[in-house]
Amino acid sequence: MPAAEEVVATYLIETYLPLDQAAEAIAGEQSTGTFVKVARETSELRERFAARVLSVAEIAPTGNADLPGATGTGRKRSAEVRIAFGLDNFGPSLPNLLAAVAGNLFELRQLAGIRLLDLDLPPAFTERYPGPQYGVRGTRKLLDRPEGVLLGTIVKPSIGLPPEELRLLVRELAEAGIDFIKDDELMGNPPHSPLAERVAVVTEELDKVAARTGRRPMYAFNITDDLDRMASNHDLVRAAGGTCVMACVNLIGFTGLAWLRERCALPIHGHRAMTGVYTRAPQLGIDYVAWSKLARLAGADHLHTNGLSNKFYETDEEVLRSINAVRTPMLGGYETLPVLSSGQTPGLAPETYRRTDTTDLLVLAGGGIHGHPGGSAAGVAAMRAAWCAATSGQDLHAAARDVPALQQALDTFGGPRPAARDDAAGGARG
Amino acid sequence: MPAAEEVVATYLIETYLPLDQAAEAIAGEQSTGTFVKVARETSELRERFAARVLSVAEIAPTGNADLPGATGTGRKRSAEVRIAFGLDNFGPSLPNLLAAVAGNLFELRQLAGIRLLDLDLPPAFTERYPGPQYGVRGTRKLLDRPEGVLLGTIVKPSIGLPPEELRLLVRELAEAGIDFIKDDELMGNPPHSPLAERVAVVTEELDKVAARTGRRPMYAFNITDDLDRMASNHDLVRAAGGTCVMACVNLIGFTGLAWLRERCALPIHGHRAMTGVYTRAPQLGIDYVAWSKLARLAGADHLHTNGLSNKFYETDEEVLRSINAVRTPMLGGYETLPVLSSGQTPGLAPETYRRTDTTDLLVLAGGGIHGHPGGSAAGVAAMRAAWCAATSGQDLHAAARDVPALQQALDTFGGPRPAARDDAAGGARG
Repeated sequence: MPAAEEVVATYLIETYLPLDQAAEAIAGEQSTGTFVKVARETSELRERFAARVLSVAEIAPTGNADLPGATGTGRKRSAEVRIAFGLDNFGPSLPNLLAAVAGNLFELRQLAGIRLLDLDLPPAFTERYPGPQYGVRGTRKLLDRPEGVLLGTIVKPSIGLPPEELRLLVRELAEAGIDFIKDDELMGNPPHSPLAERVAVVTEELDKVAARTGRRPMYAFNITDDLDRMASNHDLVRAAGGTCVMACVNLIGFTGLAWLRERCALPIHGHRAMTGVYTRAPQLGIDYVAWSKLARLAGADHLHTNGLSNKFYETDEEVLRSINAVRTPMLGGYETLPVLSSGQTPGLAPETYRRTDTTDLLVLAGGGIHGHPGGSAAGVAAMRAAWCAATSGQDLHAAARDVPALQQALDTFGGPRPAARDDAAGGARG
Repeated sequence: MPAAEEVVATYLIETYLPLDQAAEAIAGEQSTGTFVKVARETSELRERFAARVLSVAEIAPTGNADLPGATGTGRKRSAEVRIAFGLDNFGPSLPNLLAAVAGNLFELRQLAGIRLLDLDLPPAFTERYPGPQYGVRGTRKLLDRPEGVLLGTIVKPSIGLPPEELRLLVRELAEAGIDFIKDDELMGNPPHSPLAERVAVVTEELDKVAARTGRRPMYAFNITDDLDRMASNHDLVRAAGGTCVMACVNLIGFTGLAWLRERCALPIHGHRAMTGVYTRAPQLGIDYVAWSKLARLAGADHLHTNGLSNKFYETDEEVLRSINAVRTPMLGGYETLPVLSSGQTPGLAPETYRRTDTTDLLVLAGGGIHGHPGGSAAGVAAMRAAWCAATSGQDLHAAARDVPALQQALDTFGGPRPAARDDAAGGARG
């Protein structure tokens, strides 16, 4: 076990050099080293501050392409490498941590592949970063939904909807009993639909529906913007009685998110736009497991994980690993709600439930609700019925006999997915 | 020419689908589209808000590996694609711009390769983002160096140097006539060497040397940290009479940098730690040309470009392209000083000067100065002599006859690089 005052980073490395030599190149570059021995670099200094290679475990060849510029010849080897960095090198600071565990190492010639897979952080980080303020339980409490999957949608069309049209859409969705509605990540505070106008019409409609039905959906307003503006956006939402804000984690950075968390009174819905730039090249980047830990530390109450059979590149196995990552406790807490989205339809409910084995999920359907032939309200009814059936073990086709909206959805978007699908091949180019 | 109210993004795409279809997938995902047609998505709305594919220019096959999850069969094609996004979709906001031009598109299955190459921004951005406060001219003025290459170094060892040792090193470097000294990016505000202590000893030494010699080098204190702390760090540096702060652009994000710029009185030395995660996989990411435009817009006065024959993965051609990118005026200004570093030695001066054809460069040598057998002061003298010779057309070996420190440097780090080196093969795995 690493000592409490260390950060342990786990990497995938691929190299034409001896594995130990490549691992030491990372440890050197990211702590005391430069390309020549320099004055004042005493052995005592190195002993205290040098990063230490804890383990180098060779794995089977990955088949990944080489990164450009890699040195060495012969056979490429791959390994999982664990490196310990003394906390004293940077202190419990997210950006300074990143300088060490992810700074220049992606550029090292010694490596033909380099990916940060995971991070084990010492408790000192909990003192600076309080993490999610609401998480799963706080969100359920605000929604008055103590159990069951939380069901949500994204406003579609993504952009361009005039506020008065948004009003009608929100009314329809709220009356249909949806738990959660969010702005698209493309909808910030643009000239054609200022956030202040959207907040005004949405909160007014939600109040009206709440007065009639006793249920007030959570609406995540996208407050992503330059930081001072984002703080003002938050204050605007809060003053109007809004109950959630959305921030695109990568677009404001982990530091921007941590800064927001310090001045935020509402759950932060963490959107993952641009995460693909870190995750999609298998031989480079930052794995979702490490990425999501940083986002949770910075304070994300909800975090997008993608969903099964999504329209993007990830396989179901990868999505399930992301959902699991977000749900795994870290540093004794940091409870964040996984958000499943992208191409989600009623037919995916049984398989999603079977494979996640939890209802602590926020499942968002955009097109899968708004594209319902009976309209958005029918789309909500179909999703709700599908999840009720899935969690009670009822067959979707049987459930659809009592709920025409569900039958229509299955006819339009496809029926329940076969449970035995081979996920390993799920996302591969056919 | 695009209309003034549009952003034009240029991408490299690689796909097994028809090129037009893949380009339209980006435009759709990043503006009005979802995976099904939805209610309220009127043709008027699409007309006004949909991103438009301006051009699709097929290029020769790249040889890049496929990104995982790519759909389609047959032959992979590659193209440079230009897409116009209406500014009305997001307004002149850096994070909201990124949601559109770089949001989910890296995850699209339609693409086997996707890289943001360049961005053309409309003048509206200049109103929100003032950009570099000092740039090349402001930095020269602060340094009282109206012409010639600016010569700098990085404190080495990177971390662990006690403040009193730092004092001696700074004294030695300043007395040797260096223009610029910077903290390593690994040295933030750690427990073992608090920034306040470093600022105190460094500024005291610089004042003493300035009193003796009339020359005060610029010292870039690494203020990178959580944002409120970073602002305090800046105030600390400024109050002590410091003349430069360093921020790691990717670790605080473009929004964090823009936020710093608003409250910053000093030149911002923009470090590029972690840029490799965006640039190194040729089939994915954000090219340095686009990346550096965003960093300049956010206010970087200096921007690391890497140097020739660097210890990292980039070829000389790529480095020269980056230097050129930073030096190319954008939006009528945004003048940023390129910073060449990594493995820089006196022997590289003639070739660097020949190929950049400018002295508006800040050239940093870390090991190339501190690793000099005669010590850091001799290292500075050697670099200065080499650049004097290079810019006056003198042969380095001839210059070394009058400057023993230069001769020692050439003996230790290698002589002048042959001018005819083939750069295309420069960084390839041998």
